[in-house]
Amino acid sequence: MRAGILVTGTEVLSGFISDRNGPWISARLGELGVEVIQIAIVGDRPEDLEAALGAMRDQGADLIVTSGGLGPTADDLTAEVVGRFTGRDLVLDTEMEEKIQRILENFARRLKFDAEALRESNRKQAMIPEGATAIDPAGTAPGLVVPAGDAVVVVLPGPPRELHEMWPRALAAAPARALLDRAEPFEAFSIRMFGVPESELAQALREIEDETDLGPLEITTCLRGGELITDVRHRAGEEAAVEALRKGLEARLGQWTFSESGETIGEVVAKRLEGRTVAVAESCTGGLLAGRLTDMPGASAYFRGGVVAYSNEAKAELLGVDPGMIESHGAVSPEVAEAMADGALERLGADVACAVTGIAGPDGGSEEKPVGYVCFCVKSAAGDVLPRDIVLPGDRADVRGRSVAVAMHLLRYLLEGREPPR
Amino acid sequence: MRAGILVTGTEVLSGFISDRNGPWISARLGELGVEVIQIAIVGDRPEDLEAALGAMRDQGADLIVTSGGLGPTADDLTAEVVGRFTGRDLVLDTEMEEKIQRILENFARRLKFDAEALRESNRKQAMIPEGATAIDPAGTAPGLVVPAGDAVVVVLPGPPRELHEMWPRALAAAPARALLDRAEPFEAFSIRMFGVPESELAQALREIEDETDLGPLEITTCLRGGELITDVRHRAGEEAAVEALRKGLEARLGQWTFSESGETIGEVVAKRLEGRTVAVAESCTGGLLAGRLTDMPGASAYFRGGVVAYSNEAKAELLGVDPGMIESHGAVSPEVAEAMADGALERLGADVACAVTGIAGPDGGSEEKPVGYVCFCVKSAAGDVLPRDIVLPGDRADVRGRSVAVAMHLLRYLLEGREPPR
Repeated sequence: MRAGILVTGTEVLSGFISDRNGPWISARLGELGVEVIQIAIVGDRPEDLEAALGAMRDQGADLIVTSGGLGPTADDLTAEVVGRFTGRDLVLDTEMEEKIQRILENFARRLKFDAEALRESNRKQAMIPEGATAIDPAGTAPGLVVPAGDAVVVVLPGPPRELHEMWPRALAAAPARALLDRAEPFEAFSIRMFGVPESELAQALREIEDETDLGPLEITTCLRGGELITDVRHRAGEEAAVEALRKGLEARLGQWTFSESGETIGEVVAKRLEGRTVAVAESCTGGLLAGRLTDMPGASAYFRGGVVAYSNEAKAELLGVDPGMIESHGAVSPEVAEAMADGALERLGADVACAVTGIAGPDGGSEEKPVGYVCFCVKSAAGDVLPRDIVLPGDRADVRGRSVAVAMHLLRYLLEGREPPR
Repeated sequence: MRAGILVTGTEVLSGFISDRNGPWISARLGELGVEVIQIAIVGDRPEDLEAALGAMRDQGADLIVTSGGLGPTADDLTAEVVGRFTGRDLVLDTEMEEKIQRILENFARRLKFDAEALRESNRKQAMIPEGATAIDPAGTAPGLVVPAGDAVVVVLPGPPRELHEMWPRALAAAPARALLDRAEPFEAFSIRMFGVPESELAQALREIEDETDLGPLEITTCLRGGELITDVRHRAGEEAAVEALRKGLEARLGQWTFSESGETIGEVVAKRLEGRTVAVAESCTGGLLAGRLTDMPGASAYFRGGVVAYSNEAKAELLGVDPGMIESHGAVSPEVAEAMADGALERLGADVACAVTGIAGPDGGSEEKPVGYVCFCVKSAAGDVLPRDIVLPGDRADVRGRSVAVAMHLLRYLLEGREPPR
């Protein structure tokens, strides 16, 4: 069972916005056991869209999922092109037209816009290829499930929220269901490490492969935000190879491993807190560390709060950092990082605090403290302390992002009661 | 001049990580006047990579840019496949081998890893197609510029930082330069609005088109994080159409327009501050509003700091919010939002403060205050105040992201001394 994913939209093709739908659809299809052969992004030109559909059919795709091009504007042409591709004329779905009209009336009333103008813009959204199944919209654009010989084309809108909501409805439509019933779901897991280079992982995998055939496992490694992630996918019944891989990595790189089941560092930290509370004091990360700690549901159970002490006055006023210390050591120094952690512990009444102060750039660097120099201090109310100062590579966004990663992992080490390896 | 972009990597194809290189390369090529016909993402299987290269050549690509698959692991096969595709054998580039070796020695020393292990893993990175130009690495992987008949294949590594650094070097290589000298750069601009639905923009564009031929303009519209963005690209000499479009949109939707030159809301806010300082007090956005205000270089000139007051205790301790007010109105209420803004003004000594408190979900909603209910208050030390409470759609991440957008725009309206339209 093979699938192609076709994302449309000049705004995505031109690099103006990043596509979020291709990866999302691919991950869902993977879980269902469908092998994705390609994600293609094309513009709003109908000939490019049709060429891409043809290329995917030629490569043997049983399923093609498209996103985008279902809106009310003139460049939204997916339904028409898919109709032509599958040899089906567009017909007005009057039931769908009424549904859209009702949605628009609510929408217009709420936003105080003219319902007639909206209606005019959106009428074309009720035109569907003859014989296709229309999928109820999450916004105003209905989706489509269109039989194409032995294959099926699933057509969904571009806004991710709409696409996500409509996905199960599209899969439940008879032609899609019949196809997916033939797929055998993959099993998958993911092992995450921090602080080890990719080449060490490559060598470990070669060594394990020398002892055990890992052929039945589809192993992907990638470095993301400082974390080295090994993603494994396999069919049922490959437990021996899975076991060899897990044990081999544990023996060689276990001390850098923070998750063997795909948990994110945020989830691991939340678990390691075991009822303790955490607070943060940030300078160069400007709120992003607090943002990371609060991106999970239920964060209020462990996150007390944070201070973004960008100015020296804020460091003094909100965290009680001695201005004299800032004067003598500099705002970016191990001393100030620890004083910020102390302030967060005290002012926010947390069990553990994590402080970050650094030079994100592009300006503000010196020979002694270059751009990318960041000081961290993780400290517990009980007095455990884990300080670090390092120079991180990259531009402003990289330095900020990597600082958040380092801070999260230092927090984890302190919670685990151990030093980072090496 | 047409180009295809080919991103490789099972981790990207499987949806495990989002591709950032395709959009980046596409934007750079667009600036150079090269029309991108497709961005394709394929896995690490050499036959899929070769099929995609062939499909792009068949579609008339003069230039193909690949990213990824140049690493030391066994699934990194791009150089080999591009060699086969262009009919060139792989040969060892001894000069490049030495460069890589020197990089690795530094790397190993810094990280205290075994240089020999690294060397073994990375030797294959010095194998390049005969007659290709090798591009000096930013990490350890060299890039390639490979002539392919009348066309050129540019091969770059996957890590975005390395790709960005190596991009100008690849363009400077003779075969790439010869090709790009023939391209005629586009002119481009972008108009950004907030608070208006896409269908209103579609209608405005139809009305303008009725009066003036907009055919010479390539107009793309998209809705991103609550902002409605019109991206326009055109060849030189189309000033009349550009003028008609700009004036037409200004007349119809000018009150919602916040940028006519592609500035982000962050840049607009920074400019509107005109020397004034800003502070934030956040609950549900958990630091992301501060993160947005500090993502630009030079933010320390206007950003005083922020408080992430997640717990009620933090609201009281760090912002001086009366616990009795939280008790009687609830932590998510217009009253508490204003008290948070007052606290940020006072404690951080800022000229303007922006406070956000809301229910990001998935839990914590009630009939009266559902998930997505968010209260905002923007207030100046001079006493101007702009309060809003709204219900935002979507999941936890959507609510948090949209809250940041709404807060930034409310801040802009206050700085402009006007109310949001309608």
